[in-house]
Amino acid sequence: MKSIVTASYAVYFNEEAFNALRKHVSSRSYSKIFVLVDENTEKHCLPIFKQEINGEFDFKLLRITSGELHKNIETCMQAWNNLSDSDADRKSLLINLGGGVLTDLGGFVASTFKRGIDFVNIPTTLLAMVDASVGGKTGVDLGTLKNQIGVINQPEMVLVVPKFLKTLDERQLQSGFAEMLKHGLIRSASYWEELKEVSGFEGLDRLIYDSVVIKNEVVLKDPTEQNLRKILNFGHTLGHAIESHFLEDQSKKTLLHGEAIAVGMILEAYLSTRLTGLSQSALNDISKTFLSRYEKVEFSNEDVEIIVSLLKFDKKNSHGNINFVLLKSIGEASIDVKILPDLFTVAFSYYKLL
Amino acid sequence: MKSIVTASYAVYFNEEAFNALRKHVSSRSYSKIFVLVDENTEKHCLPIFKQEINGEFDFKLLRITSGELHKNIETCMQAWNNLSDSDADRKSLLINLGGGVLTDLGGFVASTFKRGIDFVNIPTTLLAMVDASVGGKTGVDLGTLKNQIGVINQPEMVLVVPKFLKTLDERQLQSGFAEMLKHGLIRSASYWEELKEVSGFEGLDRLIYDSVVIKNEVVLKDPTEQNLRKILNFGHTLGHAIESHFLEDQSKKTLLHGEAIAVGMILEAYLSTRLTGLSQSALNDISKTFLSRYEKVEFSNEDVEIIVSLLKFDKKNSHGNINFVLLKSIGEASIDVKILPDLFTVAFSYYKLL
Repeated sequence: MKSIVTASYAVYFNEEAFNALRKHVSSRSYSKIFVLVDENTEKHCLPIFKQEINGEFDFKLLRITSGELHKNIETCMQAWNNLSDSDADRKSLLINLGGGVLTDLGGFVASTFKRGIDFVNIPTTLLAMVDASVGGKTGVDLGTLKNQIGVINQPEMVLVVPKFLKTLDERQLQSGFAEMLKHGLIRSASYWEELKEVSGFEGLDRLIYDSVVIKNEVVLKDPTEQNLRKILNFGHTLGHAIESHFLEDQSKKTLLHGEAIAVGMILEAYLSTRLTGLSQSALNDISKTFLSRYEKVEFSNEDVEIIVSLLKFDKKNSHGNINFVLLKSIGEASIDVKILPDLFTVAFSYYKLL
Repeated sequence: MKSIVTASYAVYFNEEAFNALRKHVSSRSYSKIFVLVDENTEKHCLPIFKQEINGEFDFKLLRITSGELHKNIETCMQAWNNLSDSDADRKSLLINLGGGVLTDLGGFVASTFKRGIDFVNIPTTLLAMVDASVGGKTGVDLGTLKNQIGVINQPEMVLVVPKFLKTLDERQLQSGFAEMLKHGLIRSASYWEELKEVSGFEGLDRLIYDSVVIKNEVVLKDPTEQNLRKILNFGHTLGHAIESHFLEDQSKKTLLHGEAIAVGMILEAYLSTRLTGLSQSALNDISKTFLSRYEKVEFSNEDVEIIVSLLKFDKKNSHGNINFVLLKSIGEASIDVKILPDLFTVAFSYYKLL
């Protein structure tokens, strides 16, 4: 597949990907190369990586513990100290081999180590391939508040290699699929229709490619999120708050990112019928599609209260207003919609009755 | 004095400075304004700041503990949490009121909070005015390794207000003066001659201005430190290692930054006579000038060994080589000089015999 050229780097697909990486490494005189893995990617993805690299360059392994709970500054400290103890210098390269948590954190570690070293992202989950692969967002959580600490910085290149998806279970794949559905909802009704037809996860390659194209087009038009780029946050304002709450509450099963934003998209689609003219039939289509793929989540009244109170920490807020992205129709979004808190409770009531 | 326009912002001097800040704040719709202080600047500088601001905008105080020992990620965590607890959003402004430790750390905190909020630096020490005021380096230490974690990012503006210097003791002023002497050595023989004539610290305003002009000219020509900007590191390679060692060793009096690089500049001037053709008379001039202002520091053989071993962590290294900036003559520097470790011991012997 043709590589997709972003603001300052390229996303390489499939067979082209590792060729591009080998060529990049041989054209730069990196002093040391590090590969960041977690226990899952060390076991399942590193063997594939090694095979593809075929001994053409040496690297040192850096390990972190997987999971959103470890996406924090403490884990960065370990990584910075490991780099320092291994005499990493400014001409070192960090290759991030993992899901979105790992590539977000690894990107931040690289961007801040000695004021910035080169890094390459190799997303190994569907979510990371279609979401974290373009945009340059790096960062970690602060307590339970997601991605509060970070920078915008671009990798040298991104390799999207769908064969890594074979290492994932179905729940992980569904989680990533939610972001693809989002790309359809905010930007392309035809892509949404195509995705609805997908059963299972065979032959996803071209659909992944299309998702990266959509996201890249949006990010290129507005790299610093002044306007258009905000549409990528559809489903995420409520989705992030739901994700944070379920992460914090020990009694609850942790929701994957895609599972949380699937609920967020249903809620925000409901809000769209009230505020931005989304039709009732579009709402029905959206709710039905998500509920066919994602288990319904139970919310008590107390859950709803806590989730609504978490909204004030959303990064998109300013001046105390909570800014939402809503839909005008399937394929067309509207930004900076301000919503009175009362309406959130009504949206949850709609979801509960589905 | 005329403001100095840097890459993307301006440095405002004296009476112009607070006018510029008030105008900036009134022209932007910041949601919240925070002022970062330590216990010293809260006591000595905040009253001046408040008087100048004259109630034209409200702000919330953020406090950190002063000193290089607290220039670390733990202090950043406190600041990030304080910002978060105070509902800071992306449209917030952080004003850093303090010395170089505070402006470096505050710049990093602002650059990474919610992937970057605006910040303004008001350096209150001579060192911070002539050094940290331009260049956009932000960051904190990792253990005893200085500035290992950080980013390059520019403030909205910098205010250089020499009346803050009245709050400093002489040792602090001398520390800053070392960076001014460095600007003469690397870039302007006439400025060096002028500085040598200075006794006491009266009438420094224009000399501070000239120092900022020199540093700014260098940084503008090479913002990312590929070539020319490296000359600003003269005296710093050995100076930083000395500073780290004295910070780590509890039995030693901590050296101020300027005191450490004053030794570093004598050592590196000696190396310059061996490797880049600096004349013996220039070396004598340099050594005499620094020793007339800065107390001689005692180094045991063990100290020298530890300091030399610390050099390998210098950010300017690559591929295991330690890169030095040396002088060809007073006013002219040479970059990327590689030095065999044996010569460091000889340089320390020269210093000890002064």
